[in-house]
Amino acid sequence: MNADFLGDIQTPALVLSLEALDTNIRTMATARPDATLRPHVKAHKCTGIARRQVAAGHRSFTCATPLEVIGMARAGVGNDLLLANECVDTRRLAAMATAERETGIMVTVAVDSPITVDLAADAGLRHVLIDVNVGLPRCGCAPDAARSIAERAVGRGLIVRGVMGYEGHLMTAPENDKPSKVEECMRLLIRAFDSVVDVAGDECRIISAGGTGTYHVFDRHDSVLGRVNEVQAGSYALMDSSYGAQPLPFEQALYVVGTVVSTTSGERGSWAVIDVGLKSLGMDHGNPHIADANVWFCSDEHTTFSMIDGPLPRVGERVLVRPAHIDPTIAMHTAIHVVPRWGDAVIDVWPVDLRHW
Amino acid sequence: MNADFLGDIQTPALVLSLEALDTNIRTMATARPDATLRPHVKAHKCTGIARRQVAAGHRSFTCATPLEVIGMARAGVGNDLLLANECVDTRRLAAMATAERETGIMVTVAVDSPITVDLAADAGLRHVLIDVNVGLPRCGCAPDAARSIAERAVGRGLIVRGVMGYEGHLMTAPENDKPSKVEECMRLLIRAFDSVVDVAGDECRIISAGGTGTYHVFDRHDSVLGRVNEVQAGSYALMDSSYGAQPLPFEQALYVVGTVVSTTSGERGSWAVIDVGLKSLGMDHGNPHIADANVWFCSDEHTTFSMIDGPLPRVGERVLVRPAHIDPTIAMHTAIHVVPRWGDAVIDVWPVDLRHW
Repeated sequence: MNADFLGDIQTPALVLSLEALDTNIRTMATARPDATLRPHVKAHKCTGIARRQVAAGHRSFTCATPLEVIGMARAGVGNDLLLANECVDTRRLAAMATAERETGIMVTVAVDSPITVDLAADAGLRHVLIDVNVGLPRCGCAPDAARSIAERAVGRGLIVRGVMGYEGHLMTAPENDKPSKVEECMRLLIRAFDSVVDVAGDECRIISAGGTGTYHVFDRHDSVLGRVNEVQAGSYALMDSSYGAQPLPFEQALYVVGTVVSTTSGERGSWAVIDVGLKSLGMDHGNPHIADANVWFCSDEHTTFSMIDGPLPRVGERVLVRPAHIDPTIAMHTAIHVVPRWGDAVIDVWPVDLRHW
Repeated sequence: MNADFLGDIQTPALVLSLEALDTNIRTMATARPDATLRPHVKAHKCTGIARRQVAAGHRSFTCATPLEVIGMARAGVGNDLLLANECVDTRRLAAMATAERETGIMVTVAVDSPITVDLAADAGLRHVLIDVNVGLPRCGCAPDAARSIAERAVGRGLIVRGVMGYEGHLMTAPENDKPSKVEECMRLLIRAFDSVVDVAGDECRIISAGGTGTYHVFDRHDSVLGRVNEVQAGSYALMDSSYGAQPLPFEQALYVVGTVVSTTSGERGSWAVIDVGLKSLGMDHGNPHIADANVWFCSDEHTTFSMIDGPLPRVGERVLVRPAHIDPTIAMHTAIHVVPRWGDAVIDVWPVDLRHW
């Protein structure tokens, strides 16, 4: 796509197509309407995007950091915010409790150990989910430990709203294996839920799991997978080249735009260099992609690439870069430039207002 | 190293030992005193650190972005600032020219094409270096093109201060090959300089190259390498695990500090999880390092690791993480917590005030 429509935008910069964003949000909201999706804001860190998810019917959101919870609450977006990570920072826990009290927006935090329960209660928080390890070696208690953690939470006066478990290791599993592998994980989560529910009572209803790579396997009619009643997908709204390589019905809605600063054509090859590099791209999933080009490598401030076919762009031309991993990419930027459709001029700039911790 | 000395610091956070920093700065200033080193600020993006480099005798600095140049000038740090990258953004070029005029601190920009020369002149900038490609496929003109670019610059009223060329592809070359390989690159740079100097006149004196991985090969008595009269090293001040794997006389002066948020011990293994992840670590050089531990993987907000020997840390304990690549790591943070020596309490917080572009 020719990127002249971006005019005099200063680069590197993020550019978002509202049309592509809203198409992705609509596609997901059709598959997982209302509270059956708890969109994850960690992918976009932007209340402007979260508001579009609210407009599509979602009111409950997943957050990765206390600052995301507090930022969403203060901006009045959503009515049910989950910190889906353990937090042991007493000041941040207290700040979330204050935000809940002052905004009236419910805050729930994940707990997976006695100390995380105690710190949540001490901070004045009121709602927790028991985080259960379902196979990814990260946070979450053993399924058999969920009940005792729930007992401790109830004993501390906390309301246990249910359980969560993230099968992150299956997001890019082969499609034919995915449902059975996810089901194996969800059996652990449901066993944990069933052990918790008679401790926690009527308000214990949530079984939360999943992501963009697995949202479609939670068939409501399946006796196991159908019991998962909310999915925590986030990347679907914007996408990246990693998720784009999977058979998912979402399109790329955000690019990093760069400007060509140097070109070389000679005996040793022909290449162009843009001002997009390691400080404007999450690199853990590898190099970014550029249409019709081979990306050679990224440096701190540059990406070097050659064209598969056709002439090099000229110095000063704009180039759209598709990040390999959207979440850390957005976290490096302060703002997102918004166009109605690819090819239209920028009509708005949305702050990445949920950055940092 | 036990990290309890960090007290109630909120994590993830950067922590810097002044003793280690000053040792590194002193070691480098002994090898390359005064103007023979042009420290690169892109690695630290922090005028607080640049001021320590000034205290060690350096006054000329290398920058990667216009904002680094403008930030250094406005902070009054150094007297000779080089933008060692091409810039085609007319507003940023003009802002650098304004900063030069208003602060009296000399600004020089790299140029490698007719258009970069013209844009620098149009913006009111006065000094340029001709950027020469010496082997890394990135920016820089062909050595044979340097003269015509210098002629154009002189014709536009610009002062050509010399040439620069970055042999970035050799920073991690095997030590025994390094001098001969760098010399090969420098022959190209010197050929370019010799073709430029009789166009550019008396003010053309600079031959700038090198980095932390090659600063020691520029032997003043060598007929080729000795002609390089300034080295653009930056990472030496703070270091990372990539440069740390090389036989360099610098120590790790900065860590990312995390807090353990979850631990698991069971049949499937024992691991701990800290709140340091892809949004607080540059990942292009691979996983970070943790002393006495095996790092399993990093997620957006977490790093999972096991201990090589000995017990897991407990939830709430602090863990020091050595980044694989210092430059993009620092660019993700807003501030650096300063301790006099490892083990001492935090005495200061320096803003990462040269972030962004």
